[in-house]
Amino acid sequence: MAKVYLDHNGTTPLDPELKLKIPDFLDLWGNPSSIHWAGRETKSRIQKIRHQIAESFGISPLEIIFNSGGSEGNNTVIKSVFQILGHERPHFLVSSVEHPSVMKSYEAIKALGAHVEKIPVSRSGQIDFEFIQSRLSEKTAMVSVMLANNETGSIYPIKALADLAHSKGALFHCDAVQGFGKIPFQLKDLGVDYATFSAHKFYALKGTGFLYVKKGSPYVNLVHGGGQERHRRGGTENILGILSLGFMAEKLSEVSLQFDRIEKLRNYFEARILSEIPDVVVNSAQGLRLPNTSSLILQDVDGETLLMSLDLKGFAVSTGAACSSGNPEPSPVLLALGLSREEAQSSLRVSLGWQTSQAEVDLFIETLKSVVIRLRSLKEDSKVIR
Amino acid sequence: MAKVYLDHNGTTPLDPELKLKIPDFLDLWGNPSSIHWAGRETKSRIQKIRHQIAESFGISPLEIIFNSGGSEGNNTVIKSVFQILGHERPHFLVSSVEHPSVMKSYEAIKALGAHVEKIPVSRSGQIDFEFIQSRLSEKTAMVSVMLANNETGSIYPIKALADLAHSKGALFHCDAVQGFGKIPFQLKDLGVDYATFSAHKFYALKGTGFLYVKKGSPYVNLVHGGGQERHRRGGTENILGILSLGFMAEKLSEVSLQFDRIEKLRNYFEARILSEIPDVVVNSAQGLRLPNTSSLILQDVDGETLLMSLDLKGFAVSTGAACSSGNPEPSPVLLALGLSREEAQSSLRVSLGWQTSQAEVDLFIETLKSVVIRLRSLKEDSKVIR
Repeated sequence: MAKVYLDHNGTTPLDPELKLKIPDFLDLWGNPSSIHWAGRETKSRIQKIRHQIAESFGISPLEIIFNSGGSEGNNTVIKSVFQILGHERPHFLVSSVEHPSVMKSYEAIKALGAHVEKIPVSRSGQIDFEFIQSRLSEKTAMVSVMLANNETGSIYPIKALADLAHSKGALFHCDAVQGFGKIPFQLKDLGVDYATFSAHKFYALKGTGFLYVKKGSPYVNLVHGGGQERHRRGGTENILGILSLGFMAEKLSEVSLQFDRIEKLRNYFEARILSEIPDVVVNSAQGLRLPNTSSLILQDVDGETLLMSLDLKGFAVSTGAACSSGNPEPSPVLLALGLSREEAQSSLRVSLGWQTSQAEVDLFIETLKSVVIRLRSLKEDSKVIR
Repeated sequence: MAKVYLDHNGTTPLDPELKLKIPDFLDLWGNPSSIHWAGRETKSRIQKIRHQIAESFGISPLEIIFNSGGSEGNNTVIKSVFQILGHERPHFLVSSVEHPSVMKSYEAIKALGAHVEKIPVSRSGQIDFEFIQSRLSEKTAMVSVMLANNETGSIYPIKALADLAHSKGALFHCDAVQGFGKIPFQLKDLGVDYATFSAHKFYALKGTGFLYVKKGSPYVNLVHGGGQERHRRGGTENILGILSLGFMAEKLSEVSLQFDRIEKLRNYFEARILSEIPDVVVNSAQGLRLPNTSSLILQDVDGETLLMSLDLKGFAVSTGAACSSGNPEPSPVLLALGLSREEAQSSLRVSLGWQTSQAEVDLFIETLKSVVIRLRSLKEDSKVIR
């Protein structure tokens, strides 16, 4: 049975060229903190990658802190800012469609006394600027809005949001995990104070990422320890992870090229689904979106059952964020967008990748059509029996 | 030039058999939180490794939390206990020879109001039980003592220390990073409430480790996020890292065999050095020690210069902890043991590994002898000139 992977927002397979390089990378195992030959080699490789990423994003190498990934980065930023500014500025604004690592970090600081308000987001994916304007004050420490949503693919206007936060002296934090490697951008153009990145969403290894901290921004270690990352993140560096990230960072220029191809394929997919399957809605299709993401509501189809039926036929898709899969509750992101519980439970997320082919998409469309017809007829039958 | 690696306490090279397995492991890249085929496979592999490690250590699989390594583990434990118990029990006791991730975590909670006292350790590596007894009270939240010291190799009597802490209702935390894979032990026999582990000190990949949390012990996430690790550590699992740890965990039974071989080699090394180089002292040689570690004071020799001279000849050794190398200050651990600044600055740490051969040790002894003679004669010359 052909296996077709259409869940690139959950995680990406390893880049095929990177996979071939990894056996070589395994020879670089020295501790970069050691000053002998084994350590010097890894230290210089990490520095080179730091400079290269900094150049790609138009920032300073000193503004990059390598860490274990996006969740660690988001926790570090939110807990740092609360610890340093929370007394003077206890108010925080966070979009209502953030990743669990952002939401749960805010719950953690809320339990310690922070005043956290959620920014509404419309069904079409528009962030409520007026709400932010009405709530921002000299008590607001930080505003958090992600670059792109993992479930709907909506891209948010980060530069305008950061400018708005800054106008009242608040900091701005952007979870850029889902934008990294899917849309071309420069960090310096976003105007944010903090941004988080994860390697495994961009064809590199899991367990690695980096945190952008704009020079001069408040910062407390989440992980205290040795002198690594200029004393900002203790722990021996994940060298293989950083090497894998560096390898992919060299391919950042390909993002623009893949953008067009993948967007065409996604649009082709949606056009066919909308014309060939009745009662389907595409979530947040109106605004700016990641080129690879399609979030569908398939009326009268249980998303979980659909996912499992497709899995049996070799297709990997998602009903929501991978981080909460296996959870019978509907996606909090879709509910925050204003979908009903029933709509959210009839949702399916399809996310394409660099290796996704037209043939795979065609095969998926045919399979999806037949599975949806079958599930809807089963549901119809059970209604009759009841 | 032959390269001889004698810094296994800093980090270990990858196990040769593990290195051959890694290309296969790269095919396991699915997000374990995904319920489709790609995720189910990695999820079941991680569960299998969790059970296997639990069995090796005589604990429950639910007591294991995979994370990014020892530093994250130590931060998690110390900050958790302070956050939960700090109000009621603000007092903490920590040995004066701990790893920077423990020391700096204690400095962090001290800044937030904790009362932290350092437990003295004698020059021969004996922990001061009387000091602990005199300071323990119903205000003491936790006592932290490592299983084995990274610089001298001293092994501390964890069971007795944990019993002492428990007698006053305090928790016990053990940084087991340097003991893992060097001495055989069962966690259940140590009687601790928390223990931390790192994969890269046991021939596996960097960026991975695990935290043992005894059932029922106070715990707050350091990294909040998705439902991973039963909601105790957010972030997509570092699958390759965990697979590498699992591979090595299968070799834990070899630790006893290697113990004898390595200890003989280390004792042979020390016997020859003591008889063939004048004015050398072995630190903490009297008590129980890791079989692979030798901490020397070479009188009238600057440790940093010695290290660099040996490096030029292909030998990788250390003057102290890798985490603070490049730091011109003498090792805080050696100073805490009562060594003078001069003695600490004349120190050299040699740490053997599973691949270290007799021939390498012999070559190292001859090189060390000639380098020490040369450095001492240069120093003598410079004294004459002055």
